[in-house]
Amino acid sequence: MLEAYAARYRAELAERVIPFWLRHSLDHEYGGYFSALDRDGTVYDTRKYVWLQGRAVWMFSRLYNEFAPDPAFLAAARLGVEFLRRYARDEQGRVYFSLTRDGRPVFMQRKPYAAVFYQMGLAEYARATGDAACLAEAAEVFEAIRRWIADPALLGRPALPGAPAVSQLADLLVVGLMALDMAALTGDPRYDAAIAETIAGVARHFDPDRHIYRERVSRDGTPLPDDPDSRLFNPGHSIETAWIMLHMLERQPDPALRAQALAAIRGSLTLGWDAQYGGILYFVDLAGRPTLQLEATMKLWWPHAEAIYALVLAATLTGDRQWLEWLERIDAYTFRHFVDPVYGEWFGYCDRQGELALTSKGGNYKGFFHVPRALLFSIQAIERAGGAA
Amino acid sequence: MLEAYAARYRAELAERVIPFWLRHSLDHEYGGYFSALDRDGTVYDTRKYVWLQGRAVWMFSRLYNEFAPDPAFLAAARLGVEFLRRYARDEQGRVYFSLTRDGRPVFMQRKPYAAVFYQMGLAEYARATGDAACLAEAAEVFEAIRRWIADPALLGRPALPGAPAVSQLADLLVVGLMALDMAALTGDPRYDAAIAETIAGVARHFDPDRHIYRERVSRDGTPLPDDPDSRLFNPGHSIETAWIMLHMLERQPDPALRAQALAAIRGSLTLGWDAQYGGILYFVDLAGRPTLQLEATMKLWWPHAEAIYALVLAATLTGDRQWLEWLERIDAYTFRHFVDPVYGEWFGYCDRQGELALTSKGGNYKGFFHVPRALLFSIQAIERAGGAA
Repeated sequence: MLEAYAARYRAELAERVIPFWLRHSLDHEYGGYFSALDRDGTVYDTRKYVWLQGRAVWMFSRLYNEFAPDPAFLAAARLGVEFLRRYARDEQGRVYFSLTRDGRPVFMQRKPYAAVFYQMGLAEYARATGDAACLAEAAEVFEAIRRWIADPALLGRPALPGAPAVSQLADLLVVGLMALDMAALTGDPRYDAAIAETIAGVARHFDPDRHIYRERVSRDGTPLPDDPDSRLFNPGHSIETAWIMLHMLERQPDPALRAQALAAIRGSLTLGWDAQYGGILYFVDLAGRPTLQLEATMKLWWPHAEAIYALVLAATLTGDRQWLEWLERIDAYTFRHFVDPVYGEWFGYCDRQGELALTSKGGNYKGFFHVPRALLFSIQAIERAGGAA
Repeated sequence: MLEAYAARYRAELAERVIPFWLRHSLDHEYGGYFSALDRDGTVYDTRKYVWLQGRAVWMFSRLYNEFAPDPAFLAAARLGVEFLRRYARDEQGRVYFSLTRDGRPVFMQRKPYAAVFYQMGLAEYARATGDAACLAEAAEVFEAIRRWIADPALLGRPALPGAPAVSQLADLLVVGLMALDMAALTGDPRYDAAIAETIAGVARHFDPDRHIYRERVSRDGTPLPDDPDSRLFNPGHSIETAWIMLHMLERQPDPALRAQALAAIRGSLTLGWDAQYGGILYFVDLAGRPTLQLEATMKLWWPHAEAIYALVLAATLTGDRQWLEWLERIDAYTFRHFVDPVYGEWFGYCDRQGELALTSKGGNYKGFFHVPRALLFSIQAIERAGGAA
């Protein structure tokens, strides 16, 4: 059963996703990648979004390291690494959000996420090449990000007296992702310590009634205000969290937390699936109130990609066929609404009814990342399990 | 013909819009207003969003000054003014974006818009009460905002070398709105100078081929990069600009610019109307490329409110019946999709097909402002014109 998925995902990845980006995304003139690509690959914005530069470096490097040692993957990764290392950081070491095509800074967010994907790109590229300078910089940026998360004032956004002390799921996830890669690459125990901390932190986001991971919980035990930020449920994020937890728990086993993460995959789909029109909702208010996000009922590609991999992983880890029913449903929705068999790569944005809202294949928040990562990880999980479920 | 609209808008304003906010929005315990109201007025977020606090102060004061000298309007305005003056500014005089229910700061944007609506609220309240301290502070904040717009580094967002020198339509509009009120209130010639500058600035945003106002144009004549920000068309914003221009041109007449502003109403509707599903699109890329905004095809209440008033104003200023055809179309769409005859006030967010995306009547960007302002201004314009078109 799962072998058929692996074969289809392999064809999708190798024949329609990777070629789309190799053909349209590489900027051979200035370095780096175009990510704002229309349906047929036409570039509609030449700016370089650093999140997506770092993510593409990571992805091309990971493909080289684990999918196929194709020199085109390594060359594509190098195109991004060189551009990023030349242009992406300011004199204080902070990482810009966006650059012009030729690398001049356009915008700096007061958030650590551009640095996160810069870090991940460098580390995976170092793994592919043995480049010691890249690895050293990846280790340095990892530490800087931990400081920035602990004290946002360092990025120009001091905590104000009325803002509650919260733990943000996104902050845990990115530390978990970085630490998993760094631990595997270096064996340095400080990354295992970060993984242990992250596992404990994520577990505090588990909602025992709903079986989901919440976006924010209290950091110090004081109850959060009853507001939309505290009631926010992001199904795709909760599902992504679950598989990252399962990866962390492979290194540091804990049967109870493993059961919790598996429960969160099912719980997130149960609560996040749109019973009326199908597809996974973008945002949900847990009290059934309106969200502050006007795009809450839209259907985005990435929760579906994350769900596919999480379900494949759950099926292969447990051998339980119950996961296949959800996998079939998510896979069918995804291939009907997001996959573009004509030009390759997936569309990103549908409205609630599943009608395409934008024709783009990429933009300032969609690049070469969620789709190829989910396909690659799914193929690998199925192959590791020998195709059984 | 227009008298019928005036009667309907008066009933909508007096019987269904104002009562909704008076009943559900006032925080008699801590001061200020709740703006996050669900369909029936239930508060789903008690935080105080300063844009919307200032806007509500302005609106209640304006209603008191020009609609009906109802002490309830003045008391409602005072509830907001006192809260804002106590809590909304930091020690450097900058204005927070959001506060807790009891006034502790939650978030500070690196933008001047919270200050803009703080300023407008103070000025209109000063007009209602003769409060000299409010007026003096309004004058002081007006000057501060002009400095912040000229040098965003003062708000913590220095211009980076890769960011083009642009004129942003929003910055012109808010200066125009503030200056119009301050000029009428004080007669101080510096506000007429600001209006003259704003008129000249807005005229540079006019696109002579499409008859719209563009969101950003070059500040120094160098061509802008061909990117989605430069190609962005926000139909509601362009229409709002047109009527603000017409107001400014009442004070400082210029027949060519008046003709341009009228053309922009028609041009913006022509290009912004969704021929497939009806309604005014939220964002449009002028080259037909995808926007970076995923919510581009949604239908929001405020462009429709702004269009209603712009069309009423155009009809009454010109006496030309051609405007009534568009008015009928926008009015019909609005009353079918946004107006809630059951609980009052308008819904804010529909998807492209016109189906409700959120049940909220207010949130962190929707409050007591666009709807009552458009209704009041429409009634006033029709009455000034003696009901003729």
